[in-house]
Amino acid sequence: MSTFYDRFTARRSESQSVLCVGLDPDARLLPPGSTATLDGFVDFIERVVKGTGKHACAYKPNLAFFEALPFGEELLAQTVLLVRRMTPNALLIGDAKRGDISNTSRGYATAAFERWGFDAVTASPYMGIESLEPFLEYRERAVMVLCLTSNPGAQEFQLQGSPPLFEQVAMGVARRNKQSGNLWMVVGATRDGAGIRRVREIAPEVPLLVPGIGAQGGSLETVLGIVGLECLINSGRSIMYAAPELALVEEAARSAASSLVRQMQQIGKPHIGQRQ
Amino acid sequence: MSTFYDRFTARRSESQSVLCVGLDPDARLLPPGSTATLDGFVDFIERVVKGTGKHACAYKPNLAFFEALPFGEELLAQTVLLVRRMTPNALLIGDAKRGDISNTSRGYATAAFERWGFDAVTASPYMGIESLEPFLEYRERAVMVLCLTSNPGAQEFQLQGSPPLFEQVAMGVARRNKQSGNLWMVVGATRDGAGIRRVREIAPEVPLLVPGIGAQGGSLETVLGIVGLECLINSGRSIMYAAPELALVEEAARSAASSLVRQMQQIGKPHIGQRQ
Repeated sequence: MSTFYDRFTARRSESQSVLCVGLDPDARLLPPGSTATLDGFVDFIERVVKGTGKHACAYKPNLAFFEALPFGEELLAQTVLLVRRMTPNALLIGDAKRGDISNTSRGYATAAFERWGFDAVTASPYMGIESLEPFLEYRERAVMVLCLTSNPGAQEFQLQGSPPLFEQVAMGVARRNKQSGNLWMVVGATRDGAGIRRVREIAPEVPLLVPGIGAQGGSLETVLGIVGLECLINSGRSIMYAAPELALVEEAARSAASSLVRQMQQIGKPHIGQRQ
Repeated sequence: MSTFYDRFTARRSESQSVLCVGLDPDARLLPPGSTATLDGFVDFIERVVKGTGKHACAYKPNLAFFEALPFGEELLAQTVLLVRRMTPNALLIGDAKRGDISNTSRGYATAAFERWGFDAVTASPYMGIESLEPFLEYRERAVMVLCLTSNPGAQEFQLQGSPPLFEQVAMGVARRNKQSGNLWMVVGATRDGAGIRRVREIAPEVPLLVPGIGAQGGSLETVLGIVGLECLINSGRSIMYAAPELALVEEAARSAASSLVRQMQQIGKPHIGQRQ
């Protein structure tokens, strides 16, 4: 099996995109015409994947939304299967933000990589990079470590210290990545891009998963201007919940995704398909 | 419904114990005679709970071990049911170490408190205390925030900064707890107890969940000497996997638990049943 990074660059070339489509099944956001049952959600997600399959470099199911549903595990299993069937080359990232002592992290790694079969998983660095070793042992998968997030409370700890915590995390990730080569970082998009720029300076070889475009004020221009195409740009509800009714979900998702990808191509064209 | 803290003190008096029995179903550790199937694990866990029911103040299923199993959700559901049936007053703590932006944490809170019905859940502070609000809204449940762990990599970030990160977390938790009153912290036991002592100084009103007795060098004397009985002391595999064969699981678990509880009573007797 080739490495996650190799599959990422291959799919990036194929899809001409660094778009990651977030899959967050939320009963409160389902459009009229859909039902909040297992079959209803599967139908809904299938329409989203059908609409975005050509444009998505990756899909990112967020496990919180699945776990909240009584049929969440079955929905997650069916989601993984339908993504694999409809877009076999797209990467699947389990957004789990797990992290525990290493003996316990092994259980989470088994769940993410063997049970669900994700290509990558997000993880929390609070207990140290060492605690993530069981994930990192899966050399052909990637571990995406939370670094700098853009939620209102992020500054409470991440920006404290000298150097600030997020920079310490970036240094720890860069160091560990020199041996294992399968680390990414999660860095939220903000208006000025200062955090992303700093993370790139510290860890220029670690690709980024970037949520928060649009919603949290970050722009594609800013992010791609700093990171080039060594990233996945996540877009969740603006694609998944773009339609006013169920019958329009596929078309609305396609339109929202292709519009984002066109912007990516205009901004980032020179880089597509090349390692930087 | 009474608060978690009230149920904790009531159960502490009833069981004369601050023992939290960790439930980590691990196929590699099952004793001869058991089978690593759903029914086999249910039978095994039932024996552990039967043996420890009188002595346990709380049970703590670690979700990593459940998620790693193909029948993990069903096993977790059955584990919750059998603990409730066999020891209705014991507290159930979901050891999940979840944490995400607040919109997403809401999904994890729904899963922990409504779907599984835990009385408390462990959570990670990396994204700020604000990110845990959806958990804290369940005022009659508790949120146990990772503060200082005793795994080998813990010092990488938790001990960095001035004040060190774990102290910042303790301050943030103490502050938030003044309004909501339903926060705990997770602080690992170490030989000298220096970390626990510091956390207590910063946040004397926040009770602690303490793993690592024995295994990681911490002693009951040290921990109870500092915290009194405002804590739950977790013991996992030394109780759950004490028996050399399946037929002895109940008795071995009873014996290991009662021996720990006797020590607790000798050290902490003056405090039992009183708020400090």
